[in-house]
Amino acid sequence: MNGNEFGRLFRVTTYGESHGDAMGCTVSGVPAGVELSEEEIQRELDRRKPGQSMITTSRDEPDAVEINSGIQDGYTTGTPVGMVIRNKDARSGKYEPFVTAPRPSHGDFTYSAKFGTRNWGGGGRSSARETVNWVAAGAVARTALEQSEYDVEIKAHVNQIGDVEAPEVDFEEILEHSEGNEVRCAHPETAERMRDLIDEYQEAGDSIGGAIYFEARGVPRGLGAPRFDSVPSRLGRAMMSIPATTAFEFGLGRDAREVAGHDRNEDWEFDEGEGHSETVSEEGDPVPVGNDHAGLQGGITTGQPIYGEVSFHAPTSIPKRQTTVDWETGEEKEIQVVGRHDPVLPPRGVPVVEAMLWCTVLDFMLLGGRINPDRLDGKVGEYDTEYHPSSPENQ
Amino acid sequence: MNGNEFGRLFRVTTYGESHGDAMGCTVSGVPAGVELSEEEIQRELDRRKPGQSMITTSRDEPDAVEINSGIQDGYTTGTPVGMVIRNKDARSGKYEPFVTAPRPSHGDFTYSAKFGTRNWGGGGRSSARETVNWVAAGAVARTALEQSEYDVEIKAHVNQIGDVEAPEVDFEEILEHSEGNEVRCAHPETAERMRDLIDEYQEAGDSIGGAIYFEARGVPRGLGAPRFDSVPSRLGRAMMSIPATTAFEFGLGRDAREVAGHDRNEDWEFDEGEGHSETVSEEGDPVPVGNDHAGLQGGITTGQPIYGEVSFHAPTSIPKRQTTVDWETGEEKEIQVVGRHDPVLPPRGVPVVEAMLWCTVLDFMLLGGRINPDRLDGKVGEYDTEYHPSSPENQ
Amino acid sequence: MNGNEFGRLFRVTTYGESHGDAMGCTVSGVPAGVELSEEEIQRELDRRKPGQSMITTSRDEPDAVEINSGIQDGYTTGTPVGMVIRNKDARSGKYEPFVTAPRPSHGDFTYSAKFGTRNWGGGGRSSARETVNWVAAGAVARTALEQSEYDVEIKAHVNQIGDVEAPEVDFEEILEHSEGNEVRCAHPETAERMRDLIDEYQEAGDSIGGAIYFEARGVPRGLGAPRFDSVPSRLGRAMMSIPATTAFEFGLGRDAREVAGHDRNEDWEFDEGEGHSETVSEEGDPVPVGNDHAGLQGGITTGQPIYGEVSFHAPTSIPKRQTTVDWETGEEKEIQVVGRHDPVLPPRGVPVVEAMLWCTVLDFMLLGGRINPDRLDGKVGEYDTEYHPSSPENQ
Amino acid sequence: MNGNEFGRLFRVTTYGESHGDAMGCTVSGVPAGVELSEEEIQRELDRRKPGQSMITTSRDEPDAVEINSGIQDGYTTGTPVGMVIRNKDARSGKYEPFVTAPRPSHGDFTYSAKFGTRNWGGGGRSSARETVNWVAAGAVARTALEQSEYDVEIKAHVNQIGDVEAPEVDFEEILEHSEGNEVRCAHPETAERMRDLIDEYQEAGDSIGGAIYFEARGVPRGLGAPRFDSVPSRLGRAMMSIPATTAFEFGLGRDAREVAGHDRNEDWEFDEGEGHSETVSEEGDPVPVGNDHAGLQGGITTGQPIYGEVSFHAPTSIPKRQTTVDWETGEEKEIQVVGRHDPVLPPRGVPVVEAMLWCTVLDFMLLGGRINPDRLDGKVGEYDTEYHPSSPENQ
Repeated sequence: MNGNEFGRLFRVTTYGESHGDAMGCTVSGVPAGVELSEEEIQRELDRRKPGQSMITTSRDEPDAVEINSGIQDGYTTGTPVGMVIRNKDARSGKYEPFVTAPRPSHGDFTYSAKFGTRNWGGGGRSSARETVNWVAAGAVARTALEQSEYDVEIKAHVNQIGDVEAPEVDFEEILEHSEGNEVRCAHPETAERMRDLIDEYQEAGDSIGGAIYFEARGVPRGLGAPRFDSVPSRLGRAMMSIPATTAFEFGLGRDAREVAGHDRNEDWEFDEGEGHSETVSEEGDPVPVGNDHAGLQGGITTGQPIYGEVSFHAPTSIPKRQTTVDWETGEEKEIQVVGRHDPVLPPRGVPVVEAMLWCTVLDFMLLGGRINPDRLDGKVGEYDTEYHPSSPENQ
Repeated sequence: MNGNEFGRLFRVTTYGESHGDAMGCTVSGVPAGVELSEEEIQRELDRRKPGQSMITTSRDEPDAVEINSGIQDGYTTGTPVGMVIRNKDARSGKYEPFVTAPRPSHGDFTYSAKFGTRNWGGGGRSSARETVNWVAAGAVARTALEQSEYDVEIKAHVNQIGDVEAPEVDFEEILEHSEGNEVRCAHPETAERMRDLIDEYQEAGDSIGGAIYFEARGVPRGLGAPRFDSVPSRLGRAMMSIPATTAFEFGLGRDAREVAGHDRNEDWEFDEGEGHSETVSEEGDPVPVGNDHAGLQGGITTGQPIYGEVSFHAPTSIPKRQTTVDWETGEEKEIQVVGRHDPVLPPRGVPVVEAMLWCTVLDFMLLGGRINPDRLDGKVGEYDTEYHPSSPENQ
Repeated sequence: MNGNEFGRLFRVTTYGESHGDAMGCTVSGVPAGVELSEEEIQRELDRRKPGQSMITTSRDEPDAVEINSGIQDGYTTGTPVGMVIRNKDARSGKYEPFVTAPRPSHGDFTYSAKFGTRNWGGGGRSSARETVNWVAAGAVARTALEQSEYDVEIKAHVNQIGDVEAPEVDFEEILEHSEGNEVRCAHPETAERMRDLIDEYQEAGDSIGGAIYFEARGVPRGLGAPRFDSVPSRLGRAMMSIPATTAFEFGLGRDAREVAGHDRNEDWEFDEGEGHSETVSEEGDPVPVGNDHAGLQGGITTGQPIYGEVSFHAPTSIPKRQTTVDWETGEEKEIQVVGRHDPVLPPRGVPVVEAMLWCTVLDFMLLGGRINPDRLDGKVGEYDTEYHPSSPENQ
Repeated sequence: MNGNEFGRLFRVTTYGESHGDAMGCTVSGVPAGVELSEEEIQRELDRRKPGQSMITTSRDEPDAVEINSGIQDGYTTGTPVGMVIRNKDARSGKYEPFVTAPRPSHGDFTYSAKFGTRNWGGGGRSSARETVNWVAAGAVARTALEQSEYDVEIKAHVNQIGDVEAPEVDFEEILEHSEGNEVRCAHPETAERMRDLIDEYQEAGDSIGGAIYFEARGVPRGLGAPRFDSVPSRLGRAMMSIPATTAFEFGLGRDAREVAGHDRNEDWEFDEGEGHSETVSEEGDPVPVGNDHAGLQGGITTGQPIYGEVSFHAPTSIPKRQTTVDWETGEEKEIQVVGRHDPVLPPRGVPVVEAMLWCTVLDFMLLGGRINPDRLDGKVGEYDTEYHPSSPENQ
């Protein structure tokens, strides 16, 4: 069995373990003609990087990306973009006591049960370190989309840590504030309170759960395919692939249970040029009154913003004493997971959630014929005598 | 673009529109040697069928399944099982007013935006009628699993309608009670209250949301593949493919946000023969103390029960007056969706959620080598001189 | 395991056994807006149909196709086209002697070895009857392509039966003559000689091999994807899926072994408006001098005609006495396969080879962004107020 | 569009261009518990490596493989094996004259026509350099298969160069002699004559075509899936993906055209313990008398040897003067491809053909449940307390 691939036309294949030599990511299906450099990808990786602040693991990883293929003279060539990110600060020695004594609520037991072995140095392939690959792929998708004729915007922020919930903030606030604090909460006062709460748990040798709110604007109408490739279906898979997620919701989410049809249903009106969904509808187009449907009806995009939430359980690696059993010795064992671990996941999860959205949206754009899979500029069927980036003078 | 396929080795491909000629489902990857008849499938279809009670649509569909291939002398042959379910009571005429005037919160607009056309008789392919195919496929998966050497049990029930929530009930109660009332709630008193609430909404020409709780027991340890084919990832896709779902949760779900690591983490102990997870662990095996992890650690099964919830928004087809616009005439329009519609979705959603689980679990069993993909009996590489069902005397 | 699917965006899923109830085919990924009727598909099925002449099996199958979904008011809607073709003249009784005694060189033994059972009435799923599904799918692809803005032409003919080889004929001759005789050889005199040869073998209770030459014109430049989805790679799979094929060649094929690089290499010149490759290049475009490359360089289309050959071994069902063993009785057995069988395969294989080409070419057009996957007319991202075929007046 | 992936359960994803930084290969679906080292892979890469002799390109590439993931203490862990092979001797400068003037019969024009650009330094992704990835993946497959309970043997040799054909040699001779000369022809005298012929062409600044014969022994009965995943279908795709192939044949191949059914059909007899197909059938099993069917009936394995041939056209990079046109200047141009190129492809193609076979056979073994996809040793559903390689003492 495999399971290391994501996407259909924009297709990401990954490898790598937490304390192995390197993480790797092959991105296939990038249209030719996207201006792309390691810097663009690095910028996103740096947002996810460990050691950014006191509330992230102190593991010292530069997460420097190296592009091995798929680029010529600064532009993508349509062939796969191969990337490698080396692990520098791997220290698997400290995991020795746990080789046959599974850490509570980690993947230690299940990987061993599946494979009869596992990479016991840290979480191996079950580690969230894997998401460095996803952020790299997401950066490629974002770069491609931003250079397309579409004006897609994607942003996420942390809207809950423990019992501290952020009030609703609008998209512009998220764009402006979410990167302004270590917690990545777009409501600064709440961010302070979240930070205090995280400190409390960290000091107690414990960890705490939380959530991320995400939003995508400017996604064209008519994307997503009936039934198993609907947008909710694909987003559900994308988000539930992120380690430690326990819930995916869009629109009214769980609250939809208590809402009547007549309240949730949204009438249609004509766009009067007042910007219901500025980037995608024009004056005279039918637009829904309201967006409880989160941009998705029948699983296909209406052009309204797509939004939702992803819940994360608390990190399982905590310094507090816990009990396990050693299946080799047959004995109980007290353990402390003393590594360098995050006390909370959503702050570093924000770029991961965004990456999954960029990848998913670009894939739908390619599948729905909105962006030409061969070339970003959409001129098709012609070799191009004018394409200067590929001529040697431009090197 | 397509999107009409589900699963990898146990693979379901479907077609059909709500008011078209027939629904169809091809199930590929059924191991040979499963005793299977139309009756087995019909039994499941009858659970999903319209017109079961006052709280379901009165559309009169026998939903009679016809198997066209893949069976010989009552046993599967390993070749695809092709099924057709004819639509008998299609009445698309009454949808004429809505051809260019999208019904509020349906897929009318998005299908037209995508395809420039749509099957305007009813919901076409966006209709929940499609799930008849899924239930048929699920019945095949269930039959195969039940004849395997594994003892997998899957059951769901309705645990919330509007603001009426069922108390927690254990798996045995769900098995016993969930089919005992029209609401399919395993807590009979709550079922009464739900029924009353539904009546209220129905009388008001309105509809209401709700939720389904599901559980799978006896799923072997070590299933699911690292990362994009993890069990949560695949279940997330499966459940979010179901029409009108807005949230997927497993384990603590959304509540995990507020739970500390030390509280959620579960120590390991040795199975002392007291039946922590009766069907899959044996005395002396490590077992987790508790099941907040819902049988899934690192995305792979621990052998403990897998459970979660799926939220459904209220049906969008309601008799109450609503407003829309006609994009051909450019005029506003009052509409009433007067068809035969369900006032609430979860009661008929129960067999659908179960079907997606059966399909997903069997697919993981095949992918993980637990069941031989060619033959249910697992003897491999040998033509079988003893296989009586295929001999002519047995016809 | 499965294996009942073909194509990526234009995706065909099939079921059915030779002597089962029905053959079925789901075509997913048909763009919306293609005018399509059962007649269009029937016309192609009739070309493949048994009983056309003395040199085809006398099995009496009308091969009437029934479309169950995906069409509204005569146009495709973008949702899957589900088709069923019922088996009328199934007579599995006469196969009883062979249930545990495999016919020489059929799939009897291998199916039993794989599945521990098989559909013993005729060839079951290994029968060439399955190709009725492929021809149905090919007819859908052809119809879509013919209504697109591209001018793709595809035609095949029988260029060898036994040792009777047709001289090279040009494409126009193939278009004109290949359907003019029962053998489907575009060179009428050769067709006569082939016919005589076939008669000889048929009278002797024997069968004979042969070959089909195919050609596709007007396929745009730049189709096919580097490496595993190159055009030769996909055509290789398509053609070698056809029952009884033993060789696939394109361009110089097997003869390329003996040709020097300097002889095979083709210089480039500018199109001087004389029609090197009329439909795809324009005056001033670079065009290769010659077409030994068969329209494919680096696995991607040059715009020149794509051509090649497919070899078929002799039908394995022959009246001549042969010997087998019965694995149940442990005894040797003389057998005669007295069914209604073709003495030669290529004449009925012509529409099958063409169908695989139509499907493959359309899939590449969709994958390469030449045809919009959602809508044939290529206007994207807009619901269409002018799309009359979907309005009720047009029924 | 993509196309950089091969296989279903044993799945290979690649990247890299001829004169880029590195080639990369991710192998997903390797069962856990395979003893694997870089040395094993290197041994195969060295067989394909440039600069082995006078008849291969003099490009100086060590082709040193670096494994980045998927291995713990010398054994595979079931997670993807990520490999990188750096390009050391890339010299793209000399390709500058050809940026807008396509080399005859290369992929220059088609890549430009597809992507509007291309990696103009050498063949970019169309170069046979890509096959270094395939050989690396094949080495992983081979290692896994050789450590399984099955006794699969795969070997190929060059059986034709230009008009010099090798006589038929048996499998043991191929095993013994094919690596004994630079041409990789298992018939030493013929190898001499081939070598002379190659020299002639090389001296004339030209190149010549050829062919490879391959054989696989010990492949279990019952592998391959009806129809589009039949063994011929998958092998057809595998072999036609190899650059410069123009024909794929198995069994009688093209010659099957002229053979009567009664001559090709093979009676069945009982294995009398004389070793018809030593490794897979036992005394008393039905076995076919002869192997014109090349181990494949109905597309599924009979257990007899699978064999066939692949034809290669002459290398397109030749020093002889040729003519092209420059689409930027609009002028004709004389060119000489003066790089370091092979005068003939089959000698270095032998390890590539073998690699595609190893990958394909292992994939079928996994898909058919012959080898457990999670663990080579096949014990399933149990964490393994005895699995020493994963314990720290063994490092």
